[in-house]
Amino acid sequence: MRARDLGLGWGDGPTGARNTITDVPGVRVGHRTLIAGGDIRTGVTAILPHGDNLFLEKVPAAVHVVNGFGKSAGLMQVEELGEVETPILLTNTFGVPACAETLIRHAVAGEPRIGRSTSTVNPVVLECNDGYLNDIQAMAVTPGDAASAIAATSEEMASGAVGAGTGMSCYGLKGGIGTSSRRLSLDRRDFHLGALVLANFGRPGDLRLPDGRRVDPRAEAPPERGSVIVVIATDVPLQARQLRRLAARAGAGIAWTGSFWGHGSGDIGLAFSTAHRLPHEPSTAFLPPRATLAEGRMDALFRAAAEATAEAVLDALAAAEPMRGYAGHRRRALRDLLAL
Amino acid sequence: MRARDLGLGWGDGPTGARNTITDVPGVRVGHRTLIAGGDIRTGVTAILPHGDNLFLEKVPAAVHVVNGFGKSAGLMQVEELGEVETPILLTNTFGVPACAETLIRHAVAGEPRIGRSTSTVNPVVLECNDGYLNDIQAMAVTPGDAASAIAATSEEMASGAVGAGTGMSCYGLKGGIGTSSRRLSLDRRDFHLGALVLANFGRPGDLRLPDGRRVDPRAEAPPERGSVIVVIATDVPLQARQLRRLAARAGAGIAWTGSFWGHGSGDIGLAFSTAHRLPHEPSTAFLPPRATLAEGRMDALFRAAAEATAEAVLDALAAAEPMRGYAGHRRRALRDLLAL
Amino acid sequence: MRARDLGLGWGDGPTGARNTITDVPGVRVGHRTLIAGGDIRTGVTAILPHGDNLFLEKVPAAVHVVNGFGKSAGLMQVEELGEVETPILLTNTFGVPACAETLIRHAVAGEPRIGRSTSTVNPVVLECNDGYLNDIQAMAVTPGDAASAIAATSEEMASGAVGAGTGMSCYGLKGGIGTSSRRLSLDRRDFHLGALVLANFGRPGDLRLPDGRRVDPRAEAPPERGSVIVVIATDVPLQARQLRRLAARAGAGIAWTGSFWGHGSGDIGLAFSTAHRLPHEPSTAFLPPRATLAEGRMDALFRAAAEATAEAVLDALAAAEPMRGYAGHRRRALRDLLAL
Amino acid sequence: MRARDLGLGWGDGPTGARNTITDVPGVRVGHRTLIAGGDIRTGVTAILPHGDNLFLEKVPAAVHVVNGFGKSAGLMQVEELGEVETPILLTNTFGVPACAETLIRHAVAGEPRIGRSTSTVNPVVLECNDGYLNDIQAMAVTPGDAASAIAATSEEMASGAVGAGTGMSCYGLKGGIGTSSRRLSLDRRDFHLGALVLANFGRPGDLRLPDGRRVDPRAEAPPERGSVIVVIATDVPLQARQLRRLAARAGAGIAWTGSFWGHGSGDIGLAFSTAHRLPHEPSTAFLPPRATLAEGRMDALFRAAAEATAEAVLDALAAAEPMRGYAGHRRRALRDLLAL
Repeated sequence: MRARDLGLGWGDGPTGARNTITDVPGVRVGHRTLIAGGDIRTGVTAILPHGDNLFLEKVPAAVHVVNGFGKSAGLMQVEELGEVETPILLTNTFGVPACAETLIRHAVAGEPRIGRSTSTVNPVVLECNDGYLNDIQAMAVTPGDAASAIAATSEEMASGAVGAGTGMSCYGLKGGIGTSSRRLSLDRRDFHLGALVLANFGRPGDLRLPDGRRVDPRAEAPPERGSVIVVIATDVPLQARQLRRLAARAGAGIAWTGSFWGHGSGDIGLAFSTAHRLPHEPSTAFLPPRATLAEGRMDALFRAAAEATAEAVLDALAAAEPMRGYAGHRRRALRDLLAL
Repeated sequence: MRARDLGLGWGDGPTGARNTITDVPGVRVGHRTLIAGGDIRTGVTAILPHGDNLFLEKVPAAVHVVNGFGKSAGLMQVEELGEVETPILLTNTFGVPACAETLIRHAVAGEPRIGRSTSTVNPVVLECNDGYLNDIQAMAVTPGDAASAIAATSEEMASGAVGAGTGMSCYGLKGGIGTSSRRLSLDRRDFHLGALVLANFGRPGDLRLPDGRRVDPRAEAPPERGSVIVVIATDVPLQARQLRRLAARAGAGIAWTGSFWGHGSGDIGLAFSTAHRLPHEPSTAFLPPRATLAEGRMDALFRAAAEATAEAVLDALAAAEPMRGYAGHRRRALRDLLAL
Repeated sequence: MRARDLGLGWGDGPTGARNTITDVPGVRVGHRTLIAGGDIRTGVTAILPHGDNLFLEKVPAAVHVVNGFGKSAGLMQVEELGEVETPILLTNTFGVPACAETLIRHAVAGEPRIGRSTSTVNPVVLECNDGYLNDIQAMAVTPGDAASAIAATSEEMASGAVGAGTGMSCYGLKGGIGTSSRRLSLDRRDFHLGALVLANFGRPGDLRLPDGRRVDPRAEAPPERGSVIVVIATDVPLQARQLRRLAARAGAGIAWTGSFWGHGSGDIGLAFSTAHRLPHEPSTAFLPPRATLAEGRMDALFRAAAEATAEAVLDALAAAEPMRGYAGHRRRALRDLLAL
Repeated sequence: MRARDLGLGWGDGPTGARNTITDVPGVRVGHRTLIAGGDIRTGVTAILPHGDNLFLEKVPAAVHVVNGFGKSAGLMQVEELGEVETPILLTNTFGVPACAETLIRHAVAGEPRIGRSTSTVNPVVLECNDGYLNDIQAMAVTPGDAASAIAATSEEMASGAVGAGTGMSCYGLKGGIGTSSRRLSLDRRDFHLGALVLANFGRPGDLRLPDGRRVDPRAEAPPERGSVIVVIATDVPLQARQLRRLAARAGAGIAWTGSFWGHGSGDIGLAFSTAHRLPHEPSTAFLPPRATLAEGRMDALFRAAAEATAEAVLDALAAAEPMRGYAGHRRRALRDLLAL
């Protein structure tokens, strides 16, 4: 079930065909879901900006840290160089090393010169703490799981308790993976912007729906140790500086759903553009001429990013079913509360 | 009229006695309002963290830039040193030089060693563009107006179209100065946090009230060239790093009212603490021992900051009366729309 | 006298024809020098990225704050938007308001829609504290002086105790304005990079010459309340993110001359590229296609920026003559010490 | 052999007793060196701010990114919260996941509530690319190696080709681990500041000795893909904001040795203070009162940090012996060149 099935679309902008981040042409998403026994509720989600070798053909990208209580890998180099050169992996906090290892091996397999006759590779792994429903100390995510998520990428993608979202909680409800997209028209050409969130944040009772309703799950409310990861993709040609501004609007979308960005939450936006590719070692000193969006047109993208982020959070909640996990902890589903 | 007179309080937290930033003990606010002929609708607002010599007894402070399309003065040094050493002045964009000049002269008058046998002084002036209702090219704000705002500071303060808020617009309505406060209990002691906003941002139709209602003034909507300044004061003892985190929550409060932080808007949070003072040139190498808030308790302040910011925006709208100004431009008042 | 006249060139890279920032085609520099009585030793220096209307045809730019104990104006918006839209003015700390006022009036004169039917303008004014040799409390710099500096801009430029450099001190010696440039070859095409410094930093005895010699002026050494401004220009096509990386290398050049970037110093790098212009309000959503430098070629520019910065500091020292100023304070000239 | 054995001390300040980072009371360093066959030349270095449980008793810390072409882990949370809560590990670029895994397991072993009834843990792992002398694709560093480095920590520490420094190169010479310290007197009390560098940066020919000599190893010079990590420890009581300023001076020390901070280098400073400890979950809302250094006294620390960093680079070079490694690549030792 999607957010709009519950009447929880955000804003007036037209969505893409699937209303997913994969509406941005070439973007693919894959999940590896780990559910075992009563205690393992975790996984990995992979996002591919394009289907070719990302190390050899990087994409412009940028990061905005809304609140930095988090352990994501690879952000410093994205900020410095304005590019992503691996698949983007999402997982639980303690799964970061396994995922990073896989991204290194994956890149070396695709370009054996890495670390020898050319530079090393910067694995990008984003994380949330699913320790309420998942036995995070089990460190269940393996390098093989990360590889499986990459192998599973497709233009068709699922929301809810899948991949990295498997054991996540949001506003005291079952959270997980959510997504949404917007269609944009610029100079009479169609473009897309899509958001994918790993929603694992928010205090019970703080959730605010688009019509202003508050939803209180009367759930156990440990101090916020969540996080939310927002990945924004677009085919509008943008420079890294513009993508940083765009990534920042993830913070507005999160806030629209009721959050004040809690102290214990790692709230991060990462934005990339698929419009151009950045060759790893170009043979000439100058990259070929490329158009970029005029700065004065950013508002259309900012609004789309905030709307798609907010709706993606609701999408994660809408797709979720109730879950029982580690130590018998339980999370209810938004749809069950709305049905009351 | 205040926000709560219109039923527009935000959140459940208790407010201070006046529900103003001056509920934080020692903080004072003053306005100098300039209305002349049909075209001048502007002014200056002064905020004093305390009533003594700020250059000699600085206060810890920090800045968060939500969106940096703005011309405020003095922010770089606040970021580097974590302190404010002058009154904080708010004015229109082209009034910044006049206000900065006054702060320099004011500081030198209070400490004649400035620039001679001790360092210079860092004037802090924050601004929004009131060019829709005010003839900003007239550069009506003089150094004398800035001095008048400082001289007028008091614990009693007005909201609405006063001081720097005189000619401001917000969500296509008449904006201006708004304020709100929250009372906090920490280790059984009472503290306060207050916000003052200079509200001059937001697209018509984007305003969202606490109950979820949208308000569309059907106003002329030029591309956003507004801005919003949020000043947060507290008597909780915080380090500059913590104040920076606190200032960031201004962005959440702004977003809660419906904004996605438009491209053309200078959206800035500045937070200071009155709990301790930083002597200009201490005689010993170490400052005396001081308590600071444990990081894990920041959420109470974050929520208070976001709520007070959001309510202060509504307070500015609630206090406003309709205005006609430069070139016959008009802004309606929120209260008139809500009465319909 | 220039740095190379004293054998103080830095590095092996070829310089431009004049070895000045104006070797970058189109860049112009002008000074307004104020020397009056025994106490006024100050001024204004203007740098024009090009000779046309900068508000209508902005240039890509970026800022790096090495140490933020300073009061420069306009940096926040340069960081956010990656562009400069006024002449760049340098002056003493208390001259910033007067210079900012002039830049506002200058921009409005060139585009009367500013603040009315289009956005306001972001004046960029950088400063150092010349309070040792100059009576900075006199606030001698007027808006007219700023206008005179702009009017005086030319491809021919002077170094030393001119313009904003008139009253500056560096390493306990007479400092001021210095400049240097480097010629670069990329894909067999010639480019230039030039630096202009306002050198007013460094403890006596810390100066280190290219051959490793230390120079100790045995000068009075008040706590460092100096600053150094480094403006870097190039005609290599760079994005704002790349320009920020380039501006950071000003810090390396300053350090090479012996500084550790003192606490009380406002050490700032600002870099701009003249290769492309950014129209104020383009009629289409996309800027025309433009080439940019491949990231892997940045080292040539980084080295040139650090070398030109370091040499520009020595150039300021080389050009200086001894000066007596405010309160009888004196600074000796480097050339006199080297002659011993 | 140490830097001072070659006459390569930097500056006039007095060193600590050992002239190592472990002169700061309580700081301990350990190495795990991996040399196998012809191709494995790598390892792990551990730095302990104190000998107790770092998760339960964190230390104030901050990061400064000089150039962000690097893959270090954990920096975002250090920046947000101003604290380090694990041992600090240094290793090669592809060893980061193994080291991070060990830090997670190490923390959980010391506090089994992690990720269950309290927050997760932020592993701090800093890295350089040793791919010239080491077969980095072999991913030789295991979690067990990381644990061995932690177990080997002591107040006595070695410099040179040990631990993470085993396969590193610097200015075309054999690099590695270097260290230096300074003794400071503040209000008649003794304090220490120490630096440890993992030196793997710099173009052949750019090295500059304290007396100005250039050293050209006439070595193979692939494009810089190095990096340099600088860890600064002190027992002076500093807030995180002050530590960030201190960490920045690592950049000055690196520059003093001749570097312009190359594009392909991850140049990072991390500073921590041992003066106070931050309890993980204090029982009261306020931390006990603590003294902090007055800002005006920072210059003594800045100079010490820059000097200790520069000397630590030379110390790494002085300690190194010639090495042959991966693919027969060779690096000469500085001492051999100086002997010529």
